[in-house]
Amino acid sequence: MKITLKQSMNELTPYEPGRPIEAVKEQYGLTEVIKLASNENPYGVSEKVSEFLAAPKMTQIYPDGHAATIRKAVSEHLQVDEDQLLFGAGSDEVILFLCRAMLGPGTNSVMATPSFSQYKHNATVEGSEVIEVPVTAEGDHDLERMLAAINEETRIVWVCNPNNPTGNYINDEEFVSFLERVPENVLVVSDEAYLEYVEASDYPSTLPLLDRFSNLLLLRTFSKMYGLANLRLGFAVGQADFIRQVEPIRPPFNTTTFAQEAAIRALSDQAFVQSCFEKNKVERDRLRTFFEDKGYYVFPSQTNFLLVDLKKNGNDVFQALMQKGIIIRSGVPLGFPSCIRVSLGTKEENDQFISAFEDVIV
Amino acid sequence: MKITLKQSMNELTPYEPGRPIEAVKEQYGLTEVIKLASNENPYGVSEKVSEFLAAPKMTQIYPDGHAATIRKAVSEHLQVDEDQLLFGAGSDEVILFLCRAMLGPGTNSVMATPSFSQYKHNATVEGSEVIEVPVTAEGDHDLERMLAAINEETRIVWVCNPNNPTGNYINDEEFVSFLERVPENVLVVSDEAYLEYVEASDYPSTLPLLDRFSNLLLLRTFSKMYGLANLRLGFAVGQADFIRQVEPIRPPFNTTTFAQEAAIRALSDQAFVQSCFEKNKVERDRLRTFFEDKGYYVFPSQTNFLLVDLKKNGNDVFQALMQKGIIIRSGVPLGFPSCIRVSLGTKEENDQFISAFEDVIV
Repeated sequence: MKITLKQSMNELTPYEPGRPIEAVKEQYGLTEVIKLASNENPYGVSEKVSEFLAAPKMTQIYPDGHAATIRKAVSEHLQVDEDQLLFGAGSDEVILFLCRAMLGPGTNSVMATPSFSQYKHNATVEGSEVIEVPVTAEGDHDLERMLAAINEETRIVWVCNPNNPTGNYINDEEFVSFLERVPENVLVVSDEAYLEYVEASDYPSTLPLLDRFSNLLLLRTFSKMYGLANLRLGFAVGQADFIRQVEPIRPPFNTTTFAQEAAIRALSDQAFVQSCFEKNKVERDRLRTFFEDKGYYVFPSQTNFLLVDLKKNGNDVFQALMQKGIIIRSGVPLGFPSCIRVSLGTKEENDQFISAFEDVIV
Repeated sequence: MKITLKQSMNELTPYEPGRPIEAVKEQYGLTEVIKLASNENPYGVSEKVSEFLAAPKMTQIYPDGHAATIRKAVSEHLQVDEDQLLFGAGSDEVILFLCRAMLGPGTNSVMATPSFSQYKHNATVEGSEVIEVPVTAEGDHDLERMLAAINEETRIVWVCNPNNPTGNYINDEEFVSFLERVPENVLVVSDEAYLEYVEASDYPSTLPLLDRFSNLLLLRTFSKMYGLANLRLGFAVGQADFIRQVEPIRPPFNTTTFAQEAAIRALSDQAFVQSCFEKNKVERDRLRTFFEDKGYYVFPSQTNFLLVDLKKNGNDVFQALMQKGIIIRSGVPLGFPSCIRVSLGTKEENDQFISAFEDVIV
């Protein structure tokens, strides 16, 4: 085969997702497997969503790529203009849009490391330099070093808040001080995928900041708290004139009617969101205490997962737990080789995790 | 706003999709609207698909991006190896993968014009030159001129067979002769979205050609005959080593479990496909005769749509029909300003189209 791909393709490392439940069942001959690996919502979805999904649908008709109905619903929910929104098949796709529209050889973007892998992946595809600034020992974004790293060629600064895979958050004061010092021709992307799980009262309220900082863009998703990971829907909120410029990069039919209509119903059921928030908080506190009682460092998560430093190879613990039917993530591919990342399940799932972990860790 | 996008973004023209039914209802105060604009399947989907979609699903779990189950089903259906397949959210997304992985400044791709707009759109995003070779007066790909246009910088040649928006096809002999003369370092993409509608006995059987031409790649979709346009699933079939190289560009969760499982069921119901094929053929012949009896040139379509030269501005006819509740496509944005493109509906839909057309055209 004599076909060659462009240079930057050689630098890509494929994304390593959480192992699928069915594959683990088959591999280890297990009948029951619990997946605590991908930060999904263990409480499922609002009943309004499941009722909608069971109804007959026009599967053969192309979706409305403009996403008019969910656009209206999100606009009303967040009190922003409809033309401030850009919808993607998950916020991952919005990350792809931004990189594809803004980055190329001779440009760079600045990000924390470890952080969400898709920023680097997409920037690399574009042949754009990636400036990675290590998080602090506690897992925080080092915003001062990130500021110092910005140069003439910088197009985007990625801020994952709360951060994946640590769960740490950046507070209001730190974030505003950062924004005040980023040059206004550099886009600041605040990726807020786990926003709905945050308990901290000084977590920044970023929507009002859009009026003050013309270079700010927020990413939100329906994949986490809203329980629509499979249907793929996320969006950006930003300046209307910026959104208008990026919009032509969006594929014509990138989000489905299934996702759009399910999201409208998910958004309308804030009681479900509140109930998941509370259950998650109880389980987060409980698992944190469990790990800390054993003497492990637990990163200060505001999300629906915990990154725990076990001071041993994460792959080994991952493998041992998988053989007991519990899928978590090893810290190795996430940039924390002595850690594991555990998504918070239901009380029952977490009980089973604890029991398996006790067996494995001795 | 001081953010600037990369240069190539200035050259993009947004995709103009068929008007959504609901928007047309509202705009013209209509209660019933028929959409014959996007070459969808008017007979819906197999009952196996609708039964599956009505069942409860794990909406909150990320899909298997590797698409293992539909991969196995397609591999068995087509008798190709599983690693010869690359799945996208529609074949549109596979087009994006190819452009993003192969094209950049200093490269070019060769395509017919008018043809499917996403080849040019995605190549333009990548800052890659687009060499457009006009189709013949009859609407055929001018393969000789396309061959002559290939140069040192050519990475991809796009062949849309049958072509959208004309419906013309390239026959076996012409296509093999073409393949024999394309340099082996240039990828030939045979986009076969409308394959299932083709009646012509000399339409090329391209799967066996993969053994002979290492630079050949086929695109197939579940959006047309299989009736899954909304769920977004298409795929490429090619050489395993090429697919392996492109694979890292695929976003981790680009196709949903909904789409994958619906497609398995759609594929398993070939009786539905056969029945749609036959109904489409009857309606295609009937509408062709209708137009030809009125003296219009009808491009020789092998698909589920007809491109008809009315020798008057397509936009005017489009507008007039829309006011009567029939959405078709004007030829203007498709590169045939004096034409309309009509997707073939059910017998009843086509009757209503004919009646509205008679009113409008006088």
